[in-house]
Amino acid sequence: MADTAHPPVDFRVDPARYRHWRLRIDGRVATLTMDVKEDGGLRPGYELKLNSYDLGVDIELYDAIQRLRFEHPEVGAVILTSGKERVFCAGANIRMLGQSSHGWKVNFCKFTNETRNGMEEACAESRQVYVCAINGPCAGGGYELALACERIIMADDGNTSVALPEVPLLAVLPGTGGLTRLVDKRRVRRDRADVVCTLEEGVKGRRAVEWGLVDELVPRSRLEETVRQRAAELAARSDRPTETRGVALTPLERTIEDDRIRYGHLVCALDRTRGVAEITVAGPAARPPADPAGLQVQGVAFWPLALARQLDDLVLHLRTNEEQLGLWVIRTAGSSDLVEAYDRLLADHAAHWLVREIRLYLKRVVKRVDVSSRSVFALIEPGSCFSGTLLELALAADRVYMLAGAREGDARPPAALRLTAMNFGALPMGNGLSRLAQRFLGEPGRVDDLKGRIGQDFEAGAAAEAGLVTFTPDDIDWDDEIRLAIEERVAFSPDALTGMEASLRFAGPETVETKIFGRLSAWQNWTFQRPNAVGPKGALQVYGTGQRAEFDRRRA
Amino acid sequence: MADTAHPPVDFRVDPARYRHWRLRIDGRVATLTMDVKEDGGLRPGYELKLNSYDLGVDIELYDAIQRLRFEHPEVGAVILTSGKERVFCAGANIRMLGQSSHGWKVNFCKFTNETRNGMEEACAESRQVYVCAINGPCAGGGYELALACERIIMADDGNTSVALPEVPLLAVLPGTGGLTRLVDKRRVRRDRADVVCTLEEGVKGRRAVEWGLVDELVPRSRLEETVRQRAAELAARSDRPTETRGVALTPLERTIEDDRIRYGHLVCALDRTRGVAEITVAGPAARPPADPAGLQVQGVAFWPLALARQLDDLVLHLRTNEEQLGLWVIRTAGSSDLVEAYDRLLADHAAHWLVREIRLYLKRVVKRVDVSSRSVFALIEPGSCFSGTLLELALAADRVYMLAGAREGDARPPAALRLTAMNFGALPMGNGLSRLAQRFLGEPGRVDDLKGRIGQDFEAGAAAEAGLVTFTPDDIDWDDEIRLAIEERVAFSPDALTGMEASLRFAGPETVETKIFGRLSAWQNWTFQRPNAVGPKGALQVYGTGQRAEFDRRRA
Repeated sequence: MADTAHPPVDFRVDPARYRHWRLRIDGRVATLTMDVKEDGGLRPGYELKLNSYDLGVDIELYDAIQRLRFEHPEVGAVILTSGKERVFCAGANIRMLGQSSHGWKVNFCKFTNETRNGMEEACAESRQVYVCAINGPCAGGGYELALACERIIMADDGNTSVALPEVPLLAVLPGTGGLTRLVDKRRVRRDRADVVCTLEEGVKGRRAVEWGLVDELVPRSRLEETVRQRAAELAARSDRPTETRGVALTPLERTIEDDRIRYGHLVCALDRTRGVAEITVAGPAARPPADPAGLQVQGVAFWPLALARQLDDLVLHLRTNEEQLGLWVIRTAGSSDLVEAYDRLLADHAAHWLVREIRLYLKRVVKRVDVSSRSVFALIEPGSCFSGTLLELALAADRVYMLAGAREGDARPPAALRLTAMNFGALPMGNGLSRLAQRFLGEPGRVDDLKGRIGQDFEAGAAAEAGLVTFTPDDIDWDDEIRLAIEERVAFSPDALTGMEASLRFAGPETVETKIFGRLSAWQNWTFQRPNAVGPKGALQVYGTGQRAEFDRRRA
Repeated sequence: MADTAHPPVDFRVDPARYRHWRLRIDGRVATLTMDVKEDGGLRPGYELKLNSYDLGVDIELYDAIQRLRFEHPEVGAVILTSGKERVFCAGANIRMLGQSSHGWKVNFCKFTNETRNGMEEACAESRQVYVCAINGPCAGGGYELALACERIIMADDGNTSVALPEVPLLAVLPGTGGLTRLVDKRRVRRDRADVVCTLEEGVKGRRAVEWGLVDELVPRSRLEETVRQRAAELAARSDRPTETRGVALTPLERTIEDDRIRYGHLVCALDRTRGVAEITVAGPAARPPADPAGLQVQGVAFWPLALARQLDDLVLHLRTNEEQLGLWVIRTAGSSDLVEAYDRLLADHAAHWLVREIRLYLKRVVKRVDVSSRSVFALIEPGSCFSGTLLELALAADRVYMLAGAREGDARPPAALRLTAMNFGALPMGNGLSRLAQRFLGEPGRVDDLKGRIGQDFEAGAAAEAGLVTFTPDDIDWDDEIRLAIEERVAFSPDALTGMEASLRFAGPETVETKIFGRLSAWQNWTFQRPNAVGPKGALQVYGTGQRAEFDRRRA
């Protein structure tokens, strides 16, 4: 990361270019086969043996999951399995981790976590259910991939096992939700989870079922047939339509200049001197189609879908390739009326499969902002269109500045923001709350009140009164106040800000997802800093060298 | 910590020896005045200016809180204030933090967190309510102390403010729950919390009330009177009895030999070669008194209270002074019948003020085990008495080994464990669940079933069947299996174990308390490892030297 010796990571890929996965569609059931190319690492210095993976492998997985959702409305179940003869998946590549910077490790785990959370969301919300067929040893990140599936079916063949060997082997934690999913999702008893997580060789056979580590155990000879049958049953229960065509996720266009990234509806100025990315989101240019049929005709050109794809790519790009830009400043430009019109379409046809997918995608993209280790400020100025879906970006920000009144010499009316139905539960945070509900945890009555004001324009005074914005300087103070706020923010310790933001952004209830990004990731990041893992004699560093790790035995 | 240049830390203290606090009782209202002695630091190398504190100051605070609960049944409200003319409290001493090892910082924050959680428990459960009178600048840990109070009243005098300046000043997080209490306890809006936590100078006057940072603002001249009045009102609503005497917390006796610590009901063998502390808890030697009156006569000699005090001291001692002992092995010895008889007294008279205090104290002590960064194994053997309250120690363990059948040459009957009413909610974890409910999150019916089996003896087979123990080796395998399990455990990375245990021990719902020990502490520990805080040019290291901190600007 910020590794100038290598080209920036590109998250855009398509099945024709996959090197590590095969995607096959067979009626209502798809099969996603992991078959990692050993010399296909994203960076030199390691071989992806035993179906181990790096960021490049996971980028393809993410792409496949997205395409299954949008391009294959007919698919109701996805079989996830291995294409290797003797192994399911050995997890994240250890050499890769050993040679990576702290930031790369943390960012890698964040992306892989988001991808697995997306699989669970596909099962629960998109009714495209993942079934894992474990046909060989399945360790670390391999088992965490299985844990993200709705159903885990394991071969009973003496060779196949599930394991989380990170603690005994590498002195780090399973980095992709494994611990949390064991005790919170699968509700494995804590003492058994303790045993599992300290057993290098893992658990096989009946004990794996008895302890709740997998759902079903079948002889190797019947694995494929059983999995196919389960998948067919699950697909049959899906509400996804069989008689419609999907939306092709055609290549995403962008241009990267030295200090600027442009997409169709987004532009991002990269100020590397100050450490600031200035993102401007453009509202729609025209009215929405009348109905989902019209939407389907527009396909990826439909503004909310186009925006989701562009913002998704930008967030991933900035996180991975621009780690020195610690502050993201978000503006919008366009017509609130048009944004509201699109939101109305998304609200009125929420049950339509494609509308549902687009809403879920928007939700996932704004959640990426929530868990990004970047400060986020939203600036609301005349000409902006922070309405509904776009207002969520402001509500996801650490602070919102809104210009009060008009600008001298600017004929446009004062800035206003607007609520739509999309602000009241359509785009929840990882903890299940809408950003408004979380914002007003202490005053839930405010949310009800705001619901009655959908469609109204809130100028700065009213927005402040309603608790929707943080500060409302007028034209005289605006430039100085914004400049000072930005200068101050980027001068703070990036790490302290990351810890602070991760703590302040997630008040209220906790879910498997927030526990993974809060508790588990924080402990994982801590472990990734500790000499016992990453020091010269640390377990992660000496793994595979034949040397023994040496530990400072003091408990902290 | 493990700092052999200094004597071990002793957590035993009493008001006659306080150097930093004054405790005054005035009818139903007590006043606890912080007046830190500048040259009274626990270690050389720093001066405790501006009412800043170190572990020694907090040990006295903890003692005062305990005494108020046990020795002063009549006190229904406690005023917490500063004895300094110009400052309330500047928080944890920065020089002290700067010169401390990572382990010391983490352990210090854990203890201060537990003490503040205890204040909140005193307010909610013990009906001894803390009112904070902020009579001067109140920063960092000072404000976190205020946040732990039920009511915060602040002087409006132009000098008094509340602040969490850790991020801007020191590049670390407020370490004692501040971030979580802002957004989760006081439900301060997240964008306002963001502003507060980045403002070195803090917030004063009306904004502090408007933003929910304090409850009440009064002119300096009326502060004392107002606080006294509020405290009197709160005390009048307390159910604590005015017509009874408290229990004097007489000096706790213990003997520390080189490799052994002994208390009346506890002995702990310190095996520094293997890195193991072997703790044996003795059950009661005689039947309990017939009723609370008899209990009150016994005072600190009453077995459950004596045990709570001894275990409390041992846990704190081991954590702070024996950080190389990474595994605690817990055994019990005695009569299950007698433990059950004591538990029955504690259950039958739960509403009696002293019984309530003892139950709450036992709860706090077992919770200390839950959040200790040590592996915990419980060994259940013939002659043991893991019943009720003592069974909680096994349920708090990461694993439970129970010997199946009798031992060759041992005439005693096979080991058995027993449930009492105390296992069903009297001693909840920090997340509010009983350890049984948490253990069986996935099978809640088991808890109901077990409730019907209170008082029965569970030998190894039945205990395993009921899910109460992890492994049940017989006499032939026991020694080898235990030896191997211990050898294996102490060979793992201490840090990886800490992260793993912190993740596996807290499935289920989250509370302010679990968020503080999980999410917040993990991020804090991470920050405490980062070069931006603790490297040679880190903000925590250069604070006060006149040098500027230098930051690696990459976001991780």
